[in-house]
Amino acid sequence: MSITILKGNIVSAPALGRLEVTKNGYLVAEEGRITGVFPALPERYAGAPVEDYGDGLILQSLADLHLHAPQYPMLGMGMDLPLLEWLNTYTFPTEARFADPDYAREIYRRLSRELIEGGTTRVCVFSSLHREGTLILMEELEKAGVTGYVGKVNMDRNAIPALQEGTEEAKRETLRWLEECRDFRYVKPILTPRFTPSCTDELMDFLGKLAAERDLPIQSHLSENTGEIQWVRELHPDCRQYWETYAKFGLWNSRTLMAHCVWSDGRERAAMGDAGVTVVHCADSNQNICSGTAPVRVMLNEGLKVALGSDIAGGDHLSMFDVTAAAIRASKARRIQDRWETDFLTVAEGWYLASSAGSAFFGQEPGFAPGSMLHALALDDSLLPQPHPMTVEERLERCVYRRQKDAIRAVWSEGRKVFTAR
Amino acid sequence: MSITILKGNIVSAPALGRLEVTKNGYLVAEEGRITGVFPALPERYAGAPVEDYGDGLILQSLADLHLHAPQYPMLGMGMDLPLLEWLNTYTFPTEARFADPDYAREIYRRLSRELIEGGTTRVCVFSSLHREGTLILMEELEKAGVTGYVGKVNMDRNAIPALQEGTEEAKRETLRWLEECRDFRYVKPILTPRFTPSCTDELMDFLGKLAAERDLPIQSHLSENTGEIQWVRELHPDCRQYWETYAKFGLWNSRTLMAHCVWSDGRERAAMGDAGVTVVHCADSNQNICSGTAPVRVMLNEGLKVALGSDIAGGDHLSMFDVTAAAIRASKARRIQDRWETDFLTVAEGWYLASSAGSAFFGQEPGFAPGSMLHALALDDSLLPQPHPMTVEERLERCVYRRQKDAIRAVWSEGRKVFTAR
Repeated sequence: MSITILKGNIVSAPALGRLEVTKNGYLVAEEGRITGVFPALPERYAGAPVEDYGDGLILQSLADLHLHAPQYPMLGMGMDLPLLEWLNTYTFPTEARFADPDYAREIYRRLSRELIEGGTTRVCVFSSLHREGTLILMEELEKAGVTGYVGKVNMDRNAIPALQEGTEEAKRETLRWLEECRDFRYVKPILTPRFTPSCTDELMDFLGKLAAERDLPIQSHLSENTGEIQWVRELHPDCRQYWETYAKFGLWNSRTLMAHCVWSDGRERAAMGDAGVTVVHCADSNQNICSGTAPVRVMLNEGLKVALGSDIAGGDHLSMFDVTAAAIRASKARRIQDRWETDFLTVAEGWYLASSAGSAFFGQEPGFAPGSMLHALALDDSLLPQPHPMTVEERLERCVYRRQKDAIRAVWSEGRKVFTAR
Repeated sequence: MSITILKGNIVSAPALGRLEVTKNGYLVAEEGRITGVFPALPERYAGAPVEDYGDGLILQSLADLHLHAPQYPMLGMGMDLPLLEWLNTYTFPTEARFADPDYAREIYRRLSRELIEGGTTRVCVFSSLHREGTLILMEELEKAGVTGYVGKVNMDRNAIPALQEGTEEAKRETLRWLEECRDFRYVKPILTPRFTPSCTDELMDFLGKLAAERDLPIQSHLSENTGEIQWVRELHPDCRQYWETYAKFGLWNSRTLMAHCVWSDGRERAAMGDAGVTVVHCADSNQNICSGTAPVRVMLNEGLKVALGSDIAGGDHLSMFDVTAAAIRASKARRIQDRWETDFLTVAEGWYLASSAGSAFFGQEPGFAPGSMLHALALDDSLLPQPHPMTVEERLERCVYRRQKDAIRAVWSEGRKVFTAR
């Protein structure tokens, strides 16, 4: 039987706003599955090999619940452009290149490696509409050790010619893709209507039925900016609110992820709560594109499920440490905007959203829960000076805010060690 | 005669919002002083050695016009705390440690190196109140190749005992410090009342007279948050606005830097414009501490002098690339807060603020102006994938947003090459 024993300062986020710290503790997994966190190594593991990270931190690895893989090459570009111009100048031409399998292979390999080296082991990703490119993305993620869901994008209206399928073609390619990706072990399919304006009713209806028949999860975008909301209203005059355009086709349930939700009002948020939809907050993207600042604190107070997404390349940071800091910063911008009436996210809260809240979408208990597969990272922050003897919590905070070259020493994903720093 | 010839894609910011690009050009300096940027090497330099950075970027180096050097060890910490608790838990105890010359030496050496390696060659820095520590900071900056102004902090009221001087002591130590720092070549003194609440009228009066007598520049804080403004009003009932507490003591002129100015209204901004005071915008810090979002666009429209500061450790980024991105992001938060009525900062504008606008405080013309001392950096971004053949402007944008490990290959400061990457 394979046993993994990690020694170090073990930090987990068992609940929103709460960190659990075991100084110089042991995190143990058997056959990749966590058996527990212990202040001293239990007798029964005596003699088993221990990976000792000294005074380093052992943290949960991170979950990025919204990113566009084919936008990786344009990370940090075109940020001065308004949304539509940005889409036409950067996004669509870049995505169109993924018709080329060699280009897809090269880019997705780099992306997968950067995800793992940054400690992101769980993702929900938009691919492009290309079936083959999507399979390559799944292969590269799986090879690198990233787990999660990948979606072939569906769009059969309102796109550019190079990025639009016919309705029948979209259905056929989606079905074929689902067949072809059966054998992946760690990376699974998620149905992905790009967003309401890009899918005809017929395609939405097809996807909703497919989700029900095959018990597939769903990801899309919701209420990102006010112009988009207005457009959806014109496209679906029968729906009072944007979310209903998903709900009426069976695309609105507890396995649904909705990115952004910047402008979701009380009624729309209640519909999320009732259905168990997960909101993916993408703070950097919302600010870069001037969409607005999502009311994350209000959502949390209402008990909604909220996780974080890098949303590359609307967002400009792939590292979930940066994404966590961005979410905290955005909550402070929102606090200022709300005239100091809403609380900002604390570091412990931000960290929970980036780790435990993300893994919850994959059915995991928060923290390093016994029975869960091991998803973790070891981090060495000893190169930075200490202003005073620092607590483990302070060190975690500094890791969130301050990127440290080569600090991540090792990463485990679904029980396997998938990265070791040189 | 020493000649420096740098070959690469040369980018400079000759005016707000305008980038000047010379592809495969030559930047030439003689005796450290720029003679020009040329598309082809002029005949007269034939045979002189050329440092060829290939397809790399040659950029102006950056100016950080507001940072607290002794807060460097606490970068990225305590961000969940309200301002006063943050000061008492982190800032004051950390600054107090700089009474120890060995600690000061170690920390300031690291800070100076990180500044140079990040391409920051000009600074206006707050030290602590310690005379000896301040001299050590000046030594280490000078040794690393950083140029600019350093201020021994003055505070003779409203501090903790370990960080408060008597009024006479403050005067005496300031004079002695000014004597002792005469021999630095690249790092000069700047008078530094911490802010109005920390200095008695007597000390402010002394500093104002000293500034006039010795023609010294001045740096302080202004209108950072609303509680502070209220406090200043109580301390100086004779002054209608915060800025007048500096003006009445002769601390308000064209050699004055004022950090933050988040809440400066039209009248206070007009007073800045009239006196030629430079605003130092510290976007990250203002957001981290929830001070507010400074109306930078309005200031620029009014013709005020605005530069950028990292404000470590209220700000959590030392790299001026990050600080530039933060300023752009903050301008977008402000746009959202202003219901889309104010424009955000473009990349070219942000870059100008971080480079040319900062160097203007040191009397420099914008861009790579002939006659200016060479302050530059060479950057290699070739490791990132290109979504399409990228323009130089796009590459600069990506550098601002996306940090690239070890991308800065060399840095020149005041004509000298001060950093070469391994």
